[in-house]
Amino acid sequence: MSEIRPLVLVTNDDSIEAPGLFKLVECLPQDVDIIVVAPAQPQSGKSSAITVNSPLRISSHPDVGAARVFTVSGTPVDCVKLALHAIVPRRPALVLAGINHGSNSGCNVIYSGTMGAVMEGCTVGIPSCGFSLLHHSMAADFDLSLPFVRDIISGLLADGLPDGVCLNVNIPAKVTPRGVRACRAAHGYWTDEYQRFTDPSGKPFYWLTGKFVNSEPLATDTDEYWLGQEYISLVPVSVDMSATSQVEPMSKRFDK
Amino acid sequence: MSEIRPLVLVTNDDSIEAPGLFKLVECLPQDVDIIVVAPAQPQSGKSSAITVNSPLRISSHPDVGAARVFTVSGTPVDCVKLALHAIVPRRPALVLAGINHGSNSGCNVIYSGTMGAVMEGCTVGIPSCGFSLLHHSMAADFDLSLPFVRDIISGLLADGLPDGVCLNVNIPAKVTPRGVRACRAAHGYWTDEYQRFTDPSGKPFYWLTGKFVNSEPLATDTDEYWLGQEYISLVPVSVDMSATSQVEPMSKRFDK
Repeated sequence: MSEIRPLVLVTNDDSIEAPGLFKLVECLPQDVDIIVVAPAQPQSGKSSAITVNSPLRISSHPDVGAARVFTVSGTPVDCVKLALHAIVPRRPALVLAGINHGSNSGCNVIYSGTMGAVMEGCTVGIPSCGFSLLHHSMAADFDLSLPFVRDIISGLLADGLPDGVCLNVNIPAKVTPRGVRACRAAHGYWTDEYQRFTDPSGKPFYWLTGKFVNSEPLATDTDEYWLGQEYISLVPVSVDMSATSQVEPMSKRFDK
Repeated sequence: MSEIRPLVLVTNDDSIEAPGLFKLVECLPQDVDIIVVAPAQPQSGKSSAITVNSPLRISSHPDVGAARVFTVSGTPVDCVKLALHAIVPRRPALVLAGINHGSNSGCNVIYSGTMGAVMEGCTVGIPSCGFSLLHHSMAADFDLSLPFVRDIISGLLADGLPDGVCLNVNIPAKVTPRGVRACRAAHGYWTDEYQRFTDPSGKPFYWLTGKFVNSEPLATDTDEYWLGQEYISLVPVSVDMSATSQVEPMSKRFDK
């Protein structure tokens, strides 16, 4: 009797055109079915945004290797929601996103479309993991990291993840990673965030830029630290953002 | 010698046109300065999305009561970032968002543009709080809740919030709230998420809809529970999403 093969749903935020998407597909074992549902257009910085005020389209795309491929005219979360609603033939065993062209370490997880897709998978109870390489270029070299990515995916297929927890994996660029370290996200913030321009009619406009500041440069248990040591960082992320230890103090202050 | 007055930055995700925005402004005390920086267009469901691939504009708007008012051509997070970079004359004492027309309880905090703005304020270390009314209509009646909103704001101006923690306040609709309860977000998910249409040329398209399912209907310590009891729910939210209790188990599984 044939067993039903695990199904893996793969998405990203850099769109169907991004090489990192199919590098991630390359890391999947041969004994799974693969469906790629990627944004038709780049969706960097889209966080967990959903499209509420306009329609979405699904388009088919030629197969890539063993993967069936579709695009959705929306955000990464739209891709996961619509894939689960209208594309996949059965519940995926895993939702993967990436490999992102650019870092999602530190506080950047909250802006990340890659991690938006991952949190969506987690919210509906599917083990979910995002991968990001610390290199923005479309010509970034992913190959040095792929053996590690393969191992992480095998571990996820074998043992899943605890309820409500997904993974944010970041990969140092231009080196053979020295290993993998589970850790927490470094606290930090962005500074010098906008470049100001003046348009031909004399009116100002602004373009996002800036520099990430790690507020904990001395901490040795953070993703920023381990990435600096040329390790792959693996941060377990909770989709429930409630600060449960603060419920009682806030109760004392605000209940009435 | 005159003291410098606290500055409060107010934004939302329903845009400058939404009545809830100025209902929130009405709740501020007379001894603060108020700057409103709201999205020029509705931004529901934008989560913590940022605009990375196009320019942003700031426009001035006539004062509303004691508030100076601006719009930004982007998302709620863009509003907070650009306000802090280019609009406010000094660091705000408080970032407030809302009053949102619609619920941001349960897992919906992750899709919420209102809470995206709040988390941005929190990330840069400013006490920040979002308010949402469980009623989508632009004609929603906010007035029954305003005395409670005023009290919460006073408490925030007096005592701030712990580092890394912001507040997600949801307000039951069409009733005089029975009180305020600090609690955690109910776990849940959305189901029946899309309506399928066929366009005049015979091609399908999809529109987001759906129903929120509370996975913990029996829990009495969640926002969904207290809202059902006609209380205002106040959830402390952590902007660091790291599941720190899972670092060690993940270390055992994935470190190499």
